[in-house]
Amino acid sequence: MSTLHAVVMAGGSGTRFWPASRAARPKQFLPLTDGKPMVQATIDRLAGLCGEDQVWVVAGKKLAKPLTKLLPSLPKERLLLEPEARDTAPCIALAAATIAARDPAATMVVLPADHVIAPVDAFQAMLRAGAAIAQDGETLVTFGIAPTFPATGYGYVECGEALTGQTGAFTVRRFREKPDRATAEGFLQAGSFLWNSGIFVWRVGAILAAMRAADPELGAAADAMLAAAQKGEKTALQRAFLKAPKRSIDYAVMEKAAKVAVVRAPIRWDDVGSFPALGAVAAPDADGNVVVAANGASCLPLQSGGNVVYADGARTVALFGVSDLVVVAVDDAVLVCPKDRAQDLKALVEHVRASGRTDLL
Amino acid sequence: MSTLHAVVMAGGSGTRFWPASRAARPKQFLPLTDGKPMVQATIDRLAGLCGEDQVWVVAGKKLAKPLTKLLPSLPKERLLLEPEARDTAPCIALAAATIAARDPAATMVVLPADHVIAPVDAFQAMLRAGAAIAQDGETLVTFGIAPTFPATGYGYVECGEALTGQTGAFTVRRFREKPDRATAEGFLQAGSFLWNSGIFVWRVGAILAAMRAADPELGAAADAMLAAAQKGEKTALQRAFLKAPKRSIDYAVMEKAAKVAVVRAPIRWDDVGSFPALGAVAAPDADGNVVVAANGASCLPLQSGGNVVYADGARTVALFGVSDLVVVAVDDAVLVCPKDRAQDLKALVEHVRASGRTDLL
Repeated sequence: MSTLHAVVMAGGSGTRFWPASRAARPKQFLPLTDGKPMVQATIDRLAGLCGEDQVWVVAGKKLAKPLTKLLPSLPKERLLLEPEARDTAPCIALAAATIAARDPAATMVVLPADHVIAPVDAFQAMLRAGAAIAQDGETLVTFGIAPTFPATGYGYVECGEALTGQTGAFTVRRFREKPDRATAEGFLQAGSFLWNSGIFVWRVGAILAAMRAADPELGAAADAMLAAAQKGEKTALQRAFLKAPKRSIDYAVMEKAAKVAVVRAPIRWDDVGSFPALGAVAAPDADGNVVVAANGASCLPLQSGGNVVYADGARTVALFGVSDLVVVAVDDAVLVCPKDRAQDLKALVEHVRASGRTDLL
Repeated sequence: MSTLHAVVMAGGSGTRFWPASRAARPKQFLPLTDGKPMVQATIDRLAGLCGEDQVWVVAGKKLAKPLTKLLPSLPKERLLLEPEARDTAPCIALAAATIAARDPAATMVVLPADHVIAPVDAFQAMLRAGAAIAQDGETLVTFGIAPTFPATGYGYVECGEALTGQTGAFTVRRFREKPDRATAEGFLQAGSFLWNSGIFVWRVGAILAAMRAADPELGAAADAMLAAAQKGEKTALQRAFLKAPKRSIDYAVMEKAAKVAVVRAPIRWDDVGSFPALGAVAAPDADGNVVVAANGASCLPLQSGGNVVYADGARTVALFGVSDLVVVAVDDAVLVCPKDRAQDLKALVEHVRASGRTDLL
């Protein structure tokens, strides 16, 4: 098998973890996994699967400084900076081109930096199985999670035929974007739909070829990136990136590619999309309170249940007689909202912006 | 009229403002009045009524350091320290004895340090009226607030006959401790009951004589304090204090004294007994949120109403879709509880203690 490289996509921004997350401290920086920043946990989860020197991180250039601080052992040349956020397709093109310039035969795993995944051995086994399928140099492999509820917040992959000689691997009938509730319930009942995990593996040549075939504009930008990377021309690489269209890899490539396989991932997986999802990160107490407390923080609940608490730093969050709230306490901000409003935090963040408090964003 | 001295009782402790208040930072230290610590606001409210050199502060010796820091311009000799908390009677005896040793003819106003009072001119006028009544050297004058609702958390004073030649001044029929709801409603309807404000004025000789007459144990301790103060013997003064029984001035003296008058106080008054009472301190916003934010703190409520927020320091409290909560945010702690549980904060404080977190008390 060709050398395995891992690309950690750490460029995500977002508002659903405000005020814990900020522009310069997005969700993947938060210590949501074993008290470690998620991006660090994502890298640690690769130990033994690929060499340390084959781990790459991609993020927007605005995150260069905080990421360098967060990941001091990551050499500068393996921190790939996007001049601006352009969704996943240009990000993956940048990584594929850069790796291909160094190792044209490389196999490349793509991992979002902000997912909670366990156990590690099953995760690595699934990546190895996917990488084996990808050795044909053509197949793009995605990983699907068996749905446990009719989620409307995830994309789905519909499995086709089982791949011969492979357990839990299928052709892909089609990708489905976030469905409505009824559709999601149908998917759950059908049994042939998996959540699209956003994790992929392929040979770098395969993804570059698929880009050319499925999205010529993206393919041309990727080829320009490859040429720049081969010559070691950083400015040209950035310029080429900016020629890539702002599209997701699913929409630009996966949905149109000729040879796509999906591997059923036997892991616990959560993309921790909002504060209430912290239940996937920390076990609730006897009263159903989920507490994520880092860097000396603690929580003292009394006669309180079903709350989600995120606290960072030397502070204690005391809850008394409250239920089903999200309470977030960091150095310069506190948030209190009902759990069922935590999906709408964007409105609050807009209110913060409209109030002129960009210092809090 | 004899020289007017003012005694600010700053010894109160309590749990109803936890985590804003702590053992070394009780309620009267909190910036609940115009962003000033309440004890400072209490002193400032005396400007023009009595000379700066006639202002005394009494508190437990544990508060000596924080009070000295809070009130740097108060000379050490006018900060009277109680060796232990013994309720108001010994506290007032200590002050009366100390002042009498210096100025036997003094008139003495007694003021709790943790009340919200306005306007200042009406407040000073009422104290002057009371002081005039006290000039007979016998009458103990208390101040009563016209009740606006059937409060069960305050003591009451029942007015007797109007004093001749005095507007709004009455003999006292009796003192009534905190009533039950039905009794309180009766008091409100009767019209002759006033809330006991805990503010007094008398000649020092009058209160010392009343102590001897009403409570010989207290009177003997007060006399021992007087003798020690006259000789300038600090250790003897402290020892004498410890001979005084732990009783309130109402119970020990006022309810039994021969000559007591009550002056109807034409002021807005609130003892700010708990977080929901902060409505007496800060005007609510259009959605009924009451915000007390000091030292750079702020609040950003969205789709939230009827909440009470206390924030201190460089932090923002964001509320999103919540109602009728108390949210407190200080450096090392955050509290969230429903407004209607804020009276029971003692239970939470006990929970904090039982959890071994005495560092937070």
